[in-house]
Amino acid sequence: MTTRPNDDAVRLPRIDAPTEADKPAPTTFDPPARRVGFALVGLGRLTLDELLPALLRSRHCRLAAVVSGDRDKALKVARQHGLEARSVYDYQNFDRIADDPAVDVVYIVLPNALHEEFTVRAARAGKHVLCEKPMANTAAECSRMIEACERAGRRLMIAYRCHHEPNMLALKRMLRGQRLGALREFVSSNAQAMGDPSHWRMKRSLAGGGPLPDIGIYCINSLRFLTGEEPSEVWGETWSPPDDPRFGEVEASVRFAMRFPSGLRATCHAGYDSHKSQFFRLMGSEGWAELDPAYAYRGVRMRVATVIDGEDVTQVPAVGEDNQFAAEMDHMAECVRSGSRPFASGEEGLQDMRLIEAIYRSANEARWIAVEAPQGTSRSRPPRES
Amino acid sequence: MTTRPNDDAVRLPRIDAPTEADKPAPTTFDPPARRVGFALVGLGRLTLDELLPALLRSRHCRLAAVVSGDRDKALKVARQHGLEARSVYDYQNFDRIADDPAVDVVYIVLPNALHEEFTVRAARAGKHVLCEKPMANTAAECSRMIEACERAGRRLMIAYRCHHEPNMLALKRMLRGQRLGALREFVSSNAQAMGDPSHWRMKRSLAGGGPLPDIGIYCINSLRFLTGEEPSEVWGETWSPPDDPRFGEVEASVRFAMRFPSGLRATCHAGYDSHKSQFFRLMGSEGWAELDPAYAYRGVRMRVATVIDGEDVTQVPAVGEDNQFAAEMDHMAECVRSGSRPFASGEEGLQDMRLIEAIYRSANEARWIAVEAPQGTSRSRPPRES
Amino acid sequence: MTTRPNDDAVRLPRIDAPTEADKPAPTTFDPPARRVGFALVGLGRLTLDELLPALLRSRHCRLAAVVSGDRDKALKVARQHGLEARSVYDYQNFDRIADDPAVDVVYIVLPNALHEEFTVRAARAGKHVLCEKPMANTAAECSRMIEACERAGRRLMIAYRCHHEPNMLALKRMLRGQRLGALREFVSSNAQAMGDPSHWRMKRSLAGGGPLPDIGIYCINSLRFLTGEEPSEVWGETWSPPDDPRFGEVEASVRFAMRFPSGLRATCHAGYDSHKSQFFRLMGSEGWAELDPAYAYRGVRMRVATVIDGEDVTQVPAVGEDNQFAAEMDHMAECVRSGSRPFASGEEGLQDMRLIEAIYRSANEARWIAVEAPQGTSRSRPPRES
Amino acid sequence: MTTRPNDDAVRLPRIDAPTEADKPAPTTFDPPARRVGFALVGLGRLTLDELLPALLRSRHCRLAAVVSGDRDKALKVARQHGLEARSVYDYQNFDRIADDPAVDVVYIVLPNALHEEFTVRAARAGKHVLCEKPMANTAAECSRMIEACERAGRRLMIAYRCHHEPNMLALKRMLRGQRLGALREFVSSNAQAMGDPSHWRMKRSLAGGGPLPDIGIYCINSLRFLTGEEPSEVWGETWSPPDDPRFGEVEASVRFAMRFPSGLRATCHAGYDSHKSQFFRLMGSEGWAELDPAYAYRGVRMRVATVIDGEDVTQVPAVGEDNQFAAEMDHMAECVRSGSRPFASGEEGLQDMRLIEAIYRSANEARWIAVEAPQGTSRSRPPRES
Repeated sequence: MTTRPNDDAVRLPRIDAPTEADKPAPTTFDPPARRVGFALVGLGRLTLDELLPALLRSRHCRLAAVVSGDRDKALKVARQHGLEARSVYDYQNFDRIADDPAVDVVYIVLPNALHEEFTVRAARAGKHVLCEKPMANTAAECSRMIEACERAGRRLMIAYRCHHEPNMLALKRMLRGQRLGALREFVSSNAQAMGDPSHWRMKRSLAGGGPLPDIGIYCINSLRFLTGEEPSEVWGETWSPPDDPRFGEVEASVRFAMRFPSGLRATCHAGYDSHKSQFFRLMGSEGWAELDPAYAYRGVRMRVATVIDGEDVTQVPAVGEDNQFAAEMDHMAECVRSGSRPFASGEEGLQDMRLIEAIYRSANEARWIAVEAPQGTSRSRPPRES
Repeated sequence: MTTRPNDDAVRLPRIDAPTEADKPAPTTFDPPARRVGFALVGLGRLTLDELLPALLRSRHCRLAAVVSGDRDKALKVARQHGLEARSVYDYQNFDRIADDPAVDVVYIVLPNALHEEFTVRAARAGKHVLCEKPMANTAAECSRMIEACERAGRRLMIAYRCHHEPNMLALKRMLRGQRLGALREFVSSNAQAMGDPSHWRMKRSLAGGGPLPDIGIYCINSLRFLTGEEPSEVWGETWSPPDDPRFGEVEASVRFAMRFPSGLRATCHAGYDSHKSQFFRLMGSEGWAELDPAYAYRGVRMRVATVIDGEDVTQVPAVGEDNQFAAEMDHMAECVRSGSRPFASGEEGLQDMRLIEAIYRSANEARWIAVEAPQGTSRSRPPRES
Repeated sequence: MTTRPNDDAVRLPRIDAPTEADKPAPTTFDPPARRVGFALVGLGRLTLDELLPALLRSRHCRLAAVVSGDRDKALKVARQHGLEARSVYDYQNFDRIADDPAVDVVYIVLPNALHEEFTVRAARAGKHVLCEKPMANTAAECSRMIEACERAGRRLMIAYRCHHEPNMLALKRMLRGQRLGALREFVSSNAQAMGDPSHWRMKRSLAGGGPLPDIGIYCINSLRFLTGEEPSEVWGETWSPPDDPRFGEVEASVRFAMRFPSGLRATCHAGYDSHKSQFFRLMGSEGWAELDPAYAYRGVRMRVATVIDGEDVTQVPAVGEDNQFAAEMDHMAECVRSGSRPFASGEEGLQDMRLIEAIYRSANEARWIAVEAPQGTSRSRPPRES
Repeated sequence: MTTRPNDDAVRLPRIDAPTEADKPAPTTFDPPARRVGFALVGLGRLTLDELLPALLRSRHCRLAAVVSGDRDKALKVARQHGLEARSVYDYQNFDRIADDPAVDVVYIVLPNALHEEFTVRAARAGKHVLCEKPMANTAAECSRMIEACERAGRRLMIAYRCHHEPNMLALKRMLRGQRLGALREFVSSNAQAMGDPSHWRMKRSLAGGGPLPDIGIYCINSLRFLTGEEPSEVWGETWSPPDDPRFGEVEASVRFAMRFPSGLRATCHAGYDSHKSQFFRLMGSEGWAELDPAYAYRGVRMRVATVIDGEDVTQVPAVGEDNQFAAEMDHMAECVRSGSRPFASGEEGLQDMRLIEAIYRSANEARWIAVEAPQGTSRSRPPRES
């Protein structure tokens, strides 16, 4: 399981005219027995709706174990995916996973407050870790997670699936080509109306915060990803209605701004109290690009506005759809095989957490908060870029 | 010219099926001789590109005079529109307009710094005043303008053309019907890349500021217009690159936030350094409405997202196009005839100016600034609402 | 009124950055007294809703007379537009217009069956003629109209407003640049649900047919306009439900196909029995362009699909809005002044009528019908093209 | 493997507010060992790009064998998907599949001319058959395929994946609710620019025709599926340029029309010589629905235009994305398990073939051709409908 098998690639001749869009080569799947084994820790909506189906269609990964506090549910899932009962763990016996050679990577899909514990336990068990965003509840937790994985010599990746979304990648290429001119402003909103006040996302101790770390993080991370630039100062404001049972512990909504050294500014909103709304517009001196919906699991759509021959033109490039979760796990699998550092490293997750902490601090202190850029290069080469 | 002639209305039978969209009745134009006479003060882009053509197709208005510092240009315009040379004024002899019975309304389309002076002079000349936005450079100037018109017993209206834009009106109706649920967040951006550093808009003394009073005001006023609610606190931040000759006096861009008593929040951006970009999204607990482009002279387009029968649906209502400038001037003409207060009164313009001043102050002092709501009812019934 | 006055043009400097879209120069209006005088014959929906407002904002035209069988309505309209009662004609005394020096052009907006009569009477009265589409009920009528105007030495133009629609003009330029490759297929539909069975459009004797000459003509003429190519064969099929009182005389819907010498094919639909639906897609070997809505008075929107750098891209160019009716009448005015042949000449209207007759014949005989291309060049240089 | 295992279903509580869109329950996958085994016959673009990935994420299916004339390619694919070499067949030894208990269904993805042969051989081998569209080259072949499967007591399904596309299903529901009024007209185009003249699709003997059976069939079948109505007469016209090496054997493009007993009409185009273009608009007396792109593997988008409260409104329902191929194969698996008749039965494919033959005949004879409706009910209850 250490070398990457790709000699099964099949090439097919082109059928259509050269004036039609290029088609990628057919996907090459690794033989099941040689795939990187994933243990999924936590069997909630994301795991059941997205991660399990994505694993099935990934190129390099297979499901090797499930971990859940609900054994009945875990056994059902195991049966659906052909796992034996011995591949079903609970949160108590999780450490026995050390002895499970089928498991290479532990993918942590738990409430944020548990990310540190399970990352540390997984690393101690000798497993690589893929951890959902936000990386943890605090920057201190993030640092300990990085340390634990480093000490264990294991890879640590944060599950920023948007790094693998085709429109995001196309926009990143576009920015490298200076297509929008100098970048000026990023305006974004990420909201959804939450319901159940008893859900862990509404508990500060479990979630670390409200919409800011859960969905506001997409605004922060996407802009950092797209531009490669780090914000130097942040400002924030949170709001919770006094009488809404959902928002006794976490904010109902947050607005925040970021200053970048180049002059780029960001103005963002995240909310748990508004109807689902996900978009950003990145404005440059000569054009803008909008993703609407942005940050979505599927159906992301880009519009690019520039002037062509003296005329305003809006372009909608059909960059195709890709399963972001499958691509994310495949990237992790490749890093595990090659020993290389994941693009979305622990440092990447840590920096977002530092920014989130600073935004909350700004909201408390009603002033701009300076944030240091991460030391050294936090990110390796982006996935699927030459 | 005091009673409204409308007995020339023509009714036509419906041709198409009742399942097709309703068609408004044909427009009834006032006889030319009975129309309200407008003097246009300032013959720049807005006047030549928009106001003069709009006057031609208005129902109640006619061009009665032009006022310009460039007599050659003014004579050309006068000839084009059938005015005699005696209907051409300059800034020195403008006060003689008092003796021109053809002029009922003076429409001020000058640099912001001159709004007060010409409003006062027009009122003194016994004329009603329609003044471009922003109303002036300062709230103090606005107050003096209001006072001058009150003293003279003349109407004062600020040219918020968006109050007459069909999508804005449709959205306002929608909000009254609670179609988006409780309002939560307004995100907006209004930007365009300016060029000429010597233009009056780039001079603080003439423009009073940069993009904030010029185009950021649309974000402020539109939200106040749509919701009827007044912000209680504002926050702002401005930015200018150190080395751009365009932004030696006015900000290149501004971000600002507004808090409303109901819990509604606004996060806005206005910039002179980004490619043209004009939109807002108004989010409620059960849906959102977006205008993109918003604030535009034409081609405004609305999308409304809600859940219908358990499914996300985006609606694009075809509310039709209307000439906002013509509707605005017709509203002024109706107010002049009926003696009623214009919807966009001087108090309306003053409140925006107070908010703009507070945003600038916030940017300087790096804190939230409280703003009092206008005393009494600042706005009459909206135009074209029953 | 014979030379074109344009020395009143005003130029204004550019305010925004050169990376923004170009703005046209301000419109130059002719002095009212020097404009070309139009008599509008027929005061129905089109005249009241579109033509009268368009005249007001045209550059070269003014309303000089109205002609109607309903004197009360005509007097109302006259009053609204400042005409004296002597400028109001009826269908009986219409010929007295010969003695009205204010009238240069007679614009015929009557039921199709009356186009010939009034064209002939107008030409005899020494007036130029702008006639609504379809030109007449039969090709024979069209020929007599051409002859009458030629004999009288007067201009004859058919009111194909789409020749002046900015998206149509942009697409025509695009085709000249071979942007879609070789043209292959034109698919179009133009429909609206009619209501009143007693309307003249539902009477064969008055309308000459149903949706084919009324709205199907847009599909035919637009493709001929865009490509400059003439169909060599046509096919058609009509349908009327047996029991619908609206369609006792005219077809409810028609489908038709056209073969062009280059290999281009057209497949079109027009209907009076479907909800309003207006679009076309013009497909080439390397791309397609769609107007949806097409043929509309306003709000026309173009999408262009091609491959750029190996990727499917859809472009929406913002070509701006223009009042098609005003542009059409201004073109007529320019032709009258210069003595040049209108782009949409009588021969243009005649050829559409020949094609319509052939499509009806095909529907009756259930076979393809060959149609000869017009002899000589039927069309002058397109409006607003260099 | 005969009973359907669904006791592993997992239910999860709702997290978001009830005003947000409903979320479907998590997918329940059958245990791998209990899935229906598919043999894929033919390893071209469709199989490699779509069917193999779809199988991986299907609920009821698993890959059990591959059949190809290219053993090297087949072995690569087998390795990628964990098949032993003995599960690799070629066209000669295909019949041995009778002895392969892992194979329940043979999915035929071969050139059209081979559909009959492999259906018959598969049925003789005791396997159920899922066959790509078009079902065969002729109606006679289709009849023999039906007969062979009936004789063998095996299920026969034609792979009309659009029956499983969520927008298509949503539109079908909408039509049942009479949301568009009485249906009047269906306008559709399905085109793509082909390249390689040597491809089997350009050979009449292998493909049976050109764009008509390959992609025009989508227009025919979709309308039949959506309305449940059968056309009674068809008309067609084909075209091939004389000098294009691609179109020596098959037509470059085809236009065809269909008459339905209710008065509904269809006007369609299919072409191999135009840039990729796939859409339909289905017009009713009170509204229309458009899919653009229609017929696509992914990214299908619906717009619905109706009048709401007197105003034209266009709606874009977000019906979600589903893998049409996975849903299609799952439907086949369910039919195999339950012994029920597939919705897209052999009779469904046969009727399309009869219509295609009639359209070609019409193109030859230049007249309308009557086609009998299929006897009995050709279709069972649509998939996923209650």
